[in-house]
Amino acid sequence: MKIKGFSFSAVEAGIRYSDRLDLGLIYSDIPCVTAGLFTTSQVKAAPVIIDKERLKGTYAQAILVNSGCANACTGDKGMEVAMATSALASEALGISDDLVQISSTGVIGEQLNLEAFEQSMPKLVKELSADNFERVAQAIMTTDTVLKIAQTRVNVGGKDVKIMGMAKGAGMIMPNMATMLAFIFTDAQINFAELHKSLVKASDRTFNRITIDGDTSTNDMVLVMANGTAENPLIDGGSPQDLQLFQDGLEVVLKDLALQIVSDGEGATKTITIKVCGAKENQDAEKMARTIATSSLVKTAFFGEDANWGRILAAMGRCGVRFDPNRVDISFGNVLIVKDGLSLGAEEETAASLVLKEKNFTVCVDLKDGPGCDEVFTCDFSIDYVKINADYRS
Amino acid sequence: MKIKGFSFSAVEAGIRYSDRLDLGLIYSDIPCVTAGLFTTSQVKAAPVIIDKERLKGTYAQAILVNSGCANACTGDKGMEVAMATSALASEALGISDDLVQISSTGVIGEQLNLEAFEQSMPKLVKELSADNFERVAQAIMTTDTVLKIAQTRVNVGGKDVKIMGMAKGAGMIMPNMATMLAFIFTDAQINFAELHKSLVKASDRTFNRITIDGDTSTNDMVLVMANGTAENPLIDGGSPQDLQLFQDGLEVVLKDLALQIVSDGEGATKTITIKVCGAKENQDAEKMARTIATSSLVKTAFFGEDANWGRILAAMGRCGVRFDPNRVDISFGNVLIVKDGLSLGAEEETAASLVLKEKNFTVCVDLKDGPGCDEVFTCDFSIDYVKINADYRS
Repeated sequence: MKIKGFSFSAVEAGIRYSDRLDLGLIYSDIPCVTAGLFTTSQVKAAPVIIDKERLKGTYAQAILVNSGCANACTGDKGMEVAMATSALASEALGISDDLVQISSTGVIGEQLNLEAFEQSMPKLVKELSADNFERVAQAIMTTDTVLKIAQTRVNVGGKDVKIMGMAKGAGMIMPNMATMLAFIFTDAQINFAELHKSLVKASDRTFNRITIDGDTSTNDMVLVMANGTAENPLIDGGSPQDLQLFQDGLEVVLKDLALQIVSDGEGATKTITIKVCGAKENQDAEKMARTIATSSLVKTAFFGEDANWGRILAAMGRCGVRFDPNRVDISFGNVLIVKDGLSLGAEEETAASLVLKEKNFTVCVDLKDGPGCDEVFTCDFSIDYVKINADYRS
Repeated sequence: MKIKGFSFSAVEAGIRYSDRLDLGLIYSDIPCVTAGLFTTSQVKAAPVIIDKERLKGTYAQAILVNSGCANACTGDKGMEVAMATSALASEALGISDDLVQISSTGVIGEQLNLEAFEQSMPKLVKELSADNFERVAQAIMTTDTVLKIAQTRVNVGGKDVKIMGMAKGAGMIMPNMATMLAFIFTDAQINFAELHKSLVKASDRTFNRITIDGDTSTNDMVLVMANGTAENPLIDGGSPQDLQLFQDGLEVVLKDLALQIVSDGEGATKTITIKVCGAKENQDAEKMARTIATSSLVKTAFFGEDANWGRILAAMGRCGVRFDPNRVDISFGNVLIVKDGLSLGAEEETAASLVLKEKNFTVCVDLKDGPGCDEVFTCDFSIDYVKINADYRS
């Protein structure tokens, strides 16, 4: 899919490694209404600080993104270099600095290689093309093993509105935007307020529901740029139905990307949906689902394909949500193995073990105490996770 | 060391596995003033529920403890079986049921093998001896690879007071008593109120400061039994100095056991003290130290012997304690590698990498924002941790 007005390019800039795409540029022919969400960490990388400030203007026209170096914990020097890279892009593109969003991912604590940006900028601008979407998606990968892109279309007021996006992220992934970058493009005509609202809602149900290792990055961001070329009736405060259509479409793309991120979690062999029902409130269900989804013991049991529901109950017991252990039901896929807090026996456990051999399955916990429901997406915790993270910098 | 009046025995009862000690009995000739701390999990194993109730009487005379089965999530049947095991011990020993504490560790969700207890009880009672302390310490091991015992002496009012203890625990270890059992014995004469207070204080600075995998068990308990045979002046509300002496001694034993537990953490190759200074309050320092000590990314970097301070700062950034990233200093051992939020360079990182090759070292974070200090003890996160926990039940 292509969206009129957006072009892309990526080069091997040699920022940290040679022989790999590590610098990408995304450009819109016209300024786009742009909304962003950023890491909640107190330790924010230089580009995050700059982008947040610039997005107060609600418009952007380009994204310059690199892998290999996070430009986080780099102090004043890091801010200077980040501004310098942005200036290189704005000059080469002939647009205002304020319309450039910058983004970095990679190792924390090292200064960005400005020279690599300087040398690459002419080629980067020259090669801008609607065809290079996937090359940028490739350039932002770090420990990712697969490229992550998604797209959908929605009909708004008789017009075909396209939404497409790319993402990276495989570790340090946890609620609230952990080392994850996602860039979404749409030709929708939409006001900033509605675009921002849609992004917050859709992220909350997708990117903020995934966890790989419980860590949160300094560099996370999701940007959505809308250039309005679909010529749909403007989505604003007075068009709740169109807003809903757009938001649903955005959620489709974000959920697709979020699940791609979890299934490519560092070392992951499985993607698991942890669903908690029957809680007093939705937020209780969410808290419990997150605790189960983050437990190292639960995740290693998934890796071992062991229907170890005792570890799930143990995680529930420490999550801070009140519940009656004697009313809890637990299912793996369609197999109920715990009823009213007790094991249903060896036969059910064997059936559940078969579910655990699948690449994707759902674990459902029912507290039978109210209408509260929520779900979180996680992956298993494998030997390769440790290998990847023990070796990441070497 | 032996303490007059206490005797021990352990047998191969075949509770889950054959050919290993898995059932232990601890007996005091006279009822002991006994204090206990138990898991904070809402999901409590049957023995925990029974023991807590019984300890309201402030006395105990025996502990019956098994490995192989946790008797947790076992419902009414589990409670009945737990009571039956206790009755077997009280009858065989000729003491009141209320004076028997019971304790289990092992797999969750399976019923306890009562027959194994019935068959073993005569032998267990017959073999009670002051010499069998270490055999019980062995019987309570699960994934532990080494036996954990500790002892000290303090002088209270001219009398030699002994304190000795045993512990088990290697996974599902996290603040607040996670799958950890510890049994402490002393000949001190001490009131229940002071014994309990000492146990709470000493545990808070030792057992509650260790973390292996962030999970909390359903079965944790620490018991301390005091039989008074040292004939020291009674430690009560009117003897603060003696109380302090006793409490310091208890802390020595508990800290020794706590560090043994961390260094035997499942798959652990290193023991690391995470120290946070310069926080506004001690509790801020504690919260931050715990977040660093629990981060999978920090712990895998320790395993990889990588002085990856960026992951430490990333963990700090999400811990919920406010601080200025631009004032942070970080040291590995005596090597300062981050000053005012910035790397001091490659030379310091190389020096820090040498510190990481040690079996034990300290990581110190200074926020330079106040007098608050605290420390937490952790271990690295290795490939073997995953192997152990993926295979635990098979």
